[in-house]
Amino acid sequence: MSKTNPGNFFEDFSVGQVIRHATPRTVTEGDASLYTALYGSRFAVQSSDAFARSIGYQRAPLDDLLVFHIVFGKTVPDISLNAVANLGYAGCRFLVPVFPGDSLTATSEVIGLKENSNGKTGVVYVRSCGVNQHGDTVLDYVRWVMVRKKDPAVPTGHDSVPSLPAALAPDALGDAVPILDVEDFDTDLSGSPYKWDDYEVGERIDHVDGMTVEEAEHQMATRLYQNTAKVHFNQFTEGKGRFGRRLIYGGHVISLARALSFNGLSNAFHIAAINGGRHVAPLFAGETVFAWSEIIDKAALPARDDVGALRIRLYATKDAPCSAYPGKNEAGYEPSVILDTDLWLVLPR
Amino acid sequence: MSKTNPGNFFEDFSVGQVIRHATPRTVTEGDASLYTALYGSRFAVQSSDAFARSIGYQRAPLDDLLVFHIVFGKTVPDISLNAVANLGYAGCRFLVPVFPGDSLTATSEVIGLKENSNGKTGVVYVRSCGVNQHGDTVLDYVRWVMVRKKDPAVPTGHDSVPSLPAALAPDALGDAVPILDVEDFDTDLSGSPYKWDDYEVGERIDHVDGMTVEEAEHQMATRLYQNTAKVHFNQFTEGKGRFGRRLIYGGHVISLARALSFNGLSNAFHIAAINGGRHVAPLFAGETVFAWSEIIDKAALPARDDVGALRIRLYATKDAPCSAYPGKNEAGYEPSVILDTDLWLVLPR
Amino acid sequence: MSKTNPGNFFEDFSVGQVIRHATPRTVTEGDASLYTALYGSRFAVQSSDAFARSIGYQRAPLDDLLVFHIVFGKTVPDISLNAVANLGYAGCRFLVPVFPGDSLTATSEVIGLKENSNGKTGVVYVRSCGVNQHGDTVLDYVRWVMVRKKDPAVPTGHDSVPSLPAALAPDALGDAVPILDVEDFDTDLSGSPYKWDDYEVGERIDHVDGMTVEEAEHQMATRLYQNTAKVHFNQFTEGKGRFGRRLIYGGHVISLARALSFNGLSNAFHIAAINGGRHVAPLFAGETVFAWSEIIDKAALPARDDVGALRIRLYATKDAPCSAYPGKNEAGYEPSVILDTDLWLVLPR
Repeated sequence: MSKTNPGNFFEDFSVGQVIRHATPRTVTEGDASLYTALYGSRFAVQSSDAFARSIGYQRAPLDDLLVFHIVFGKTVPDISLNAVANLGYAGCRFLVPVFPGDSLTATSEVIGLKENSNGKTGVVYVRSCGVNQHGDTVLDYVRWVMVRKKDPAVPTGHDSVPSLPAALAPDALGDAVPILDVEDFDTDLSGSPYKWDDYEVGERIDHVDGMTVEEAEHQMATRLYQNTAKVHFNQFTEGKGRFGRRLIYGGHVISLARALSFNGLSNAFHIAAINGGRHVAPLFAGETVFAWSEIIDKAALPARDDVGALRIRLYATKDAPCSAYPGKNEAGYEPSVILDTDLWLVLPR
Repeated sequence: MSKTNPGNFFEDFSVGQVIRHATPRTVTEGDASLYTALYGSRFAVQSSDAFARSIGYQRAPLDDLLVFHIVFGKTVPDISLNAVANLGYAGCRFLVPVFPGDSLTATSEVIGLKENSNGKTGVVYVRSCGVNQHGDTVLDYVRWVMVRKKDPAVPTGHDSVPSLPAALAPDALGDAVPILDVEDFDTDLSGSPYKWDDYEVGERIDHVDGMTVEEAEHQMATRLYQNTAKVHFNQFTEGKGRFGRRLIYGGHVISLARALSFNGLSNAFHIAAINGGRHVAPLFAGETVFAWSEIIDKAALPARDDVGALRIRLYATKDAPCSAYPGKNEAGYEPSVILDTDLWLVLPR
Repeated sequence: MSKTNPGNFFEDFSVGQVIRHATPRTVTEGDASLYTALYGSRFAVQSSDAFARSIGYQRAPLDDLLVFHIVFGKTVPDISLNAVANLGYAGCRFLVPVFPGDSLTATSEVIGLKENSNGKTGVVYVRSCGVNQHGDTVLDYVRWVMVRKKDPAVPTGHDSVPSLPAALAPDALGDAVPILDVEDFDTDLSGSPYKWDDYEVGERIDHVDGMTVEEAEHQMATRLYQNTAKVHFNQFTEGKGRFGRRLIYGGHVISLARALSFNGLSNAFHIAAINGGRHVAPLFAGETVFAWSEIIDKAALPARDDVGALRIRLYATKDAPCSAYPGKNEAGYEPSVILDTDLWLVLPR
């Protein structure tokens, strides 16, 4: 019997099953530096301990997406090693700030299973969470993936689809942000005078800049997250595959779009939630990523007058600037669009 | 009105204006590791806490150029986003050592403005400084850039050019170096027996080794410095531009030349000043950088017998070894030269 | 007289000579993050402080091979700058765990010298060791390299070859592992239920996954180790050389193979010894590395019932999966093989 990980097939999952994922991870200042080097993120709260302390953090927290990617990476060997497709994610809440030195583990619970009518595959729904060394859940999210069956001839009867929220409610947001001294939020240092009150629903922002991705960059990022999905690393195999080249981890695109969004959303220092996201088209090395945002909702947070939340639709494109705001069209999406994601962001008021 | 940063145009500057730059930055051991991985620097003082402590530092300071690049990067969105050309820098002093954990901010004062006769552009002179969390200025330098005017038809009348020193005087040097126990400066560990007394004015040193640069490397470096200059990152746009490819940040070349200079200047552990520098030609990925130095002056430091200063002319070339010391010629520079910089270095006596 | 390092020639060495190598190095969390980003290593003990503490470490130690590469890198300027070939290494013991913050220095003793019959070269045998800031030897190993003579016409008479063990004895192993609370060794977190008792001599494990290497990756790795061997960095020169391209540092291949071996050897968290290793063929950027292992011996460790040792033969190939276990054949090695190494690994019992 092989000692290598065969991954789980659709028949291996059951609703209610809890999977503790391998490779616990201490996140460090080294990870934060690499994250900056990979994406060029400039949000002041995550960049400077002094700035973070001046407004009420104990020190600069790690970038929310760095934490997301590390937790996500842990789930890959158990959840998606035999996945045909990563279908979506929803309801991702950032609950507790993560600081250098924190040790994270990841767990997933199977919350739904639905066999496809062809008998060859099924959809697995999991709620995954990241937990720190104190036992606090730092984030959780739902993901669903299409997974191969071992035996297409034997039906499983699984037909359970969980109900998922289109977006998190504002009263579920902001737990990861301490009460801030927003009078000390220095907008010269943060890079923009525009606070929560200055944005309006319906406003569109072209983030202007473009970033070209190299193979070494996305490979280093994805390994940093200890994400083992083979399609990102193996040119020998992928060169003979569908695309003829390595596929870039979708989370790399989200981080690039988020970093680009600083230009126009400089004070949106925290992602409170990822309501949902869709990788509309693949990204490959040598291509250039652009991004734009639309403000789709705005909410005060319960019992807080220091910060407020903006719900934005953040799109990324490849090899196409976003001055015309390319998004959905009658055929689905404009051809340049590669990412369509829906976020709640927190800004000072 | 756009919330993205339009950058400043020539008309937006006034002499005496002080600009506090965005994105404060805590520098860490992670940044130091990346700096080593990007350039392969081997100076013992910056490489080992134990070595640094043995001679009188509290711990290993960060590489001087890492600090320079981070401060420089902060100034880009305000000073040079609309620059046509980065014309030069001068009078850069390293005043206080920077250690992992220090939080830096950057400020610039406009010290000169001169409109060009064509009316389309003007030269902006700024003195930029980096400040740590204690309020100490860790470095300052003058930079001048040619910046676009918004309206070529309306003259500004600006005609103020600051006087700049050709080189810093020796009595302005060495503040960032604590009084050292030079008897404990272990030259086996530092890599060379040659101290300050062993170098002579007029001496030339071919640093021998060559280093080829990859796109992923200079992009990671430049993002680590949170430098947002678009020409370094966007192949979609640059592919259609003057060079057909991304331009490597000039500071990357300085750091490569400095790291190469270890072979011949191993004990020159500290850059006390950058008297001036000129990027003679652009560098692109795939090209190989070489370097050589000429000792052009030598100075004791006031009231110090532990260390002395060497003034060197450090040249970098591309795709050309430096055994023939390529530098200036009648036409300007030998074709292989890409960098000509003038430094004060500190060595043990 | 040149101040650049000419390296040592065969005539410069004498048996018994001790060389203290330049560039002491403090290893940090930043180095650990880069190591993860470069290889994607997933062993729980090195990945998580919380996991390491739960079994008896003071915190997560650094990856054994990161320490090896850093010590090895220090020896290059003195031992192998004028090497024609790196012939082998043997008897490498990991003696003390290395933690972030430790400061390392490296020393080599010449233990053998044998001039080749052609008079042009000789073989230099050194025992190199890495020492931490407390004076503890953290690892040592023997390496032998073929080095050029300055003067082929003058024989040196050197004819001393040290006797080297084929493998370290089990009673020499395990010093770097504290007594562990193996009941707390959580195999969900470590990624595999298979402990020492579950492996059998003769067992073969295909590690399945493949990893493609980029120029930027191996250059960053090799510079991180401050390894100055020119063939890894200088395309200008190497482009005209034997291979027409840069050669990847052999240690990079060992680290890739070790990281791939997690899939099948997840609980083999520590390399106790490298009995020997051979770089059968060169690796170049763009090629994909695969690996497989054979268990060739098994040993309890003296007076320890917490952990045991497996001796494995770890092979790496390029552009060839390992399902058929490619290794030695009548002609020497199967053409895909690039690395053949012999390790003692420690696992919980």
